Amino acid sequence: MARHIMTLTCDDRPGIVAAVSAALLSVSANIVENQQYSDEATNLFFMRTVFDAESADVPRVLDAVRASPAIAEEQLDVRPEAERCRTVILVSKFDHCLLDLLHRWKSGDLPIDIVAVVSNHEDCRGLVEYYGLPFTVIPVTKETKADAEAQLLRLVEVEDVGLVVLARYMQILSDGLCRALEGRAINIHHSFLPGFKGAKPYHQAHDRGVKLIGASAHYVTADLDEGPIIEQDVVRVTHAESPERLVAIGRDVERRVLSRAVRDHAESRVFLSGHRTIVF
Amino acid sequence: MARHIMTLTCDDRPGIVAAVSAALLSVSANIVENQQYSDEATNLFFMRTVFDAESADVPRVLDAVRASPAIAEEQLDVRPEAERCRTVILVSKFDHCLLDLLHRWKSGDLPIDIVAVVSNHEDCRGLVEYYGLPFTVIPVTKETKADAEAQLLRLVEVEDVGLVVLARYMQILSDGLCRALEGRAINIHHSFLPGFKGAKPYHQAHDRGVKLIGASAHYVTADLDEGPIIEQDVVRVTHAESPERLVAIGRDVERRVLSRAVRDHAESRVFLSGHRTIVF
Amino acid sequence: MARHIMTLTCDDRPGIVAAVSAALLSVSANIVENQQYSDEATNLFFMRTVFDAESADVPRVLDAVRASPAIAEEQLDVRPEAERCRTVILVSKFDHCLLDLLHRWKSGDLPIDIVAVVSNHEDCRGLVEYYGLPFTVIPVTKETKADAEAQLLRLVEVEDVGLVVLARYMQILSDGLCRALEGRAINIHHSFLPGFKGAKPYHQAHDRGVKLIGASAHYVTADLDEGPIIEQDVVRVTHAESPERLVAIGRDVERRVLSRAVRDHAESRVFLSGHRTIVF
Amino acid sequence: MARHIMTLTCDDRPGIVAAVSAALLSVSANIVENQQYSDEATNLFFMRTVFDAESADVPRVLDAVRASPAIAEEQLDVRPEAERCRTVILVSKFDHCLLDLLHRWKSGDLPIDIVAVVSNHEDCRGLVEYYGLPFTVIPVTKETKADAEAQLLRLVEVEDVGLVVLARYMQILSDGLCRALEGRAINIHHSFLPGFKGAKPYHQAHDRGVKLIGASAHYVTADLDEGPIIEQDVVRVTHAESPERLVAIGRDVERRVLSRAVRDHAESRVFLSGHRTIVF
Repeated sequence: MARHIMTLTCDDRPGIVAAVSAALLSVSANIVENQQYSDEATNLFFMRTVFDAESADVPRVLDAVRASPAIAEEQLDVRPEAERCRTVILVSKFDHCLLDLLHRWKSGDLPIDIVAVVSNHEDCRGLVEYYGLPFTVIPVTKETKADAEAQLLRLVEVEDVGLVVLARYMQILSDGLCRALEGRAINIHHSFLPGFKGAKPYHQAHDRGVKLIGASAHYVTADLDEGPIIEQDVVRVTHAESPERLVAIGRDVERRVLSRAVRDHAESRVFLSGHRTIVF
Repeated sequence: MARHIMTLTCDDRPGIVAAVSAALLSVSANIVENQQYSDEATNLFFMRTVFDAESADVPRVLDAVRASPAIAEEQLDVRPEAERCRTVILVSKFDHCLLDLLHRWKSGDLPIDIVAVVSNHEDCRGLVEYYGLPFTVIPVTKETKADAEAQLLRLVEVEDVGLVVLARYMQILSDGLCRALEGRAINIHHSFLPGFKGAKPYHQAHDRGVKLIGASAHYVTADLDEGPIIEQDVVRVTHAESPERLVAIGRDVERRVLSRAVRDHAESRVFLSGHRTIVF
Repeated sequence: MARHIMTLTCDDRPGIVAAVSAALLSVSANIVENQQYSDEATNLFFMRTVFDAESADVPRVLDAVRASPAIAEEQLDVRPEAERCRTVILVSKFDHCLLDLLHRWKSGDLPIDIVAVVSNHEDCRGLVEYYGLPFTVIPVTKETKADAEAQLLRLVEVEDVGLVVLARYMQILSDGLCRALEGRAINIHHSFLPGFKGAKPYHQAHDRGVKLIGASAHYVTADLDEGPIIEQDVVRVTHAESPERLVAIGRDVERRVLSRAVRDHAESRVFLSGHRTIVF
Repeated sequence: MARHIMTLTCDDRPGIVAAVSAALLSVSANIVENQQYSDEATNLFFMRTVFDAESADVPRVLDAVRASPAIAEEQLDVRPEAERCRTVILVSKFDHCLLDLLHRWKSGDLPIDIVAVVSNHEDCRGLVEYYGLPFTVIPVTKETKADAEAQLLRLVEVEDVGLVVLARYMQILSDGLCRALEGRAINIHHSFLPGFKGAKPYHQAHDRGVKLIGASAHYVTADLDEGPIIEQDVVRVTHAESPERLVAIGRDVERRVLSRAVRDHAESRVFLSGHRTIVF
């Protein structure tokens, strides 16, 4: 018996849970964990089920679920829990988010396989190679941007990548690339109450005397920094913190929030429902 | 159709979810919310399911679940969501927890019916009567304690009370009363890192220079202040806070934690698994 | 000897602390607490000093500080700590912030004297009168708004009010009234990451799937909900919370944040430095 | 002009601030930051002052402060802010706290110079050497413990070390070493509400169903894990977290709390007052 994770999104109607649990029972699978949510706004049903079963029986489960009249317009997936999410990390010069991801990966805290770390700069090579991982530099200029993105996308396709993490990658992705990576690219962004437009946001936050600074991790969409939010957090600050100190505190929140979002995604806990996420 | 809440605890074995969901489907019930947990340590299975169904069909659901060979040693309950938890609040002189409960009840934020507020002192009468609720004084002395507890227990039984809240009730309940109220009496208690034995805990916390003060809400057991924990929270403090200020901050945490625990219980979200709670 | 609080804002230059502490020492005052901050952006110096001294000696301290060549363009104030901040609370129909203020005032947790609670509706009369406080209804319509504001301002002046709290007061103050109350009127406002414009912000927050909801307390300025921030806080939420539940959670954050801001102001801890606050 | 940090502990009596600020003014020093606290329990006064002055003038400031009749039984120190705290890190096999310290040090976020990383195991050599720092293995067995401690103490003395960080160093220091390092050795320890004695504390916390897990950083004393607390924090958990997951979450809290305590110490913000700390 091996542990599997099933994720299901479908139209919300009676009988879904009965159909799924009957399908699992028919192969003597044991349900270990189960979460579900019905979104009234979209009439969509979301379910994440962890179960123990013989791997050879999984196709029968899938067939039974798909054949059920209760389950329509479904997106259905089952994978072994042991199969780790193949991940590419994009980074520029700031290494705080990268280091946090690498350390957690090394500790066994993040169920991902890191296929490559890709950067438009050389700066992080030492760190990445210390962790024994391949480091690829794809420089980006106005002229080479299209080529660079094509190269990245090829890597994603060839390597069957399930997650691209923008770990403070300071390039704006083209709309085309955003669409190609929809639902599998995560970005991290500072967040304030209230928000600030324009450059030097931590300096603006200091000038405005905010008492909390935060960060949001979200899926990348063509709408810059406005993609569906996966995770957020804040830290309390005072007037006495300089803008430079706010930036350092911001780094802490950013890395914490990004790593949590990456784990949620890698554990198949995040579902898209229109412009929002369901996180089990 | 009316909304119902089912709670189920039973031995953990394959087929439970299938049996419950088939039983619900057989009366065309619609599952709105569902949570479950398998406790490996005790081999117990816990489930909370919110569903819409005809009230007349509920007995058939109960019968079908009980008849299922997958479900053994079960504790099973279904109640209409609209049926509010009948609650008695015990209080002495401090009114901060009481007020928070009354205000949330009045705002519709707590699904409880307050049957009575019982106190061993007159102090809170004005507040309780402002909220239009019955206030009963049952004085407690060493001589009258047994009588007082008997009177309280009679009230609980006559009024079919599902929850007794010790909202800073400064009397120690006898072992017998603790047992009689097992799983339906909630107490609130200050908590520190590290903990302190003996009197004036906030003064001890000040002397020890703790940086966090907290509170725990737990079910009452004969083992004083050591019952299964339902909810906890802390607040950050500094050396500059006087012991009196710590007490005031502690009041804030206490009332917040107690109110959350009461709502969790009243919404049938709390399950006992040995000495710990499962809170959905 | 009585405890006093001195607040000082002046141009930042060497010798200020020496001048103040010499002035205090000259009357054998004992400094109990002292906080200061130099704002590089505005070149302003801020100081809050708590000291024990004979009340009769306070004028000499004030004269000495004012006479010091190190202290220029000063705003200087000394008041007995026992002199409580005379406060008017404005409220409409929602009573959660009002109740929290009244309860803390009654518990001795807020050093304010509540001169009056003023509302444009009758709804909160019972609660206010339960606490033995005067409740004044000043209805506001488009036609009577100018009169109503004049009546409020008269009350503030006649009663020597140091703080006006907008405890979910659902009227927009005119620019003139905002200016007249500058630095002594506090409002509470929901806050989100990201922010939302327009109606039903909690519904928007739900649709956007935010993971944190918060509130900001700020001084009232003519620039609606954009005044200098005094205090902020957030609470973690999930996709499973309905918009109605978000509103209830929001009430909790609002009352907590507003009460903290009121205490900070009443304890003379808040200083204005351009568009931001210094909170000691 | 260079920025300096003065720390002063002395008997609490009138005139201290006047004496210090006059001494600073006499050399035209400019006070940038100032914090003070009077501990009523011990009648001690604590002060931390950041000022800009000519380095050549510092001895005159020290002399003037020491000569003041208002200042008795003083512990007085002035150091350039640019002079970083010479630090030794002790580690065993777990590297999460170590990595966090190294990363923050490299980012310029911690004002320490790392003289050496000392371990009783080889495991962390690669990481330490990646950061270009000396890694020294001092194995510890029952027989060699006294020698190992003597070697460590010699390093501390020869290198003029101001801080020893026990970054999950799994050896109990002898009473003698604890005394020799008093006030300059920081340890990190898990903390729970309630606390747990004995082995496998995260498993005990899981069995007990705690809703918060935390960590405390404290100065090392002969009284194991009971030294004066510098910093604490907690994280919210649920019944669904396995003991292994609790351990991983605990690592996060531990590293965060330890790094904050190290920065507080390195910035000369922590004062000892009996068994508690004052942290400015």
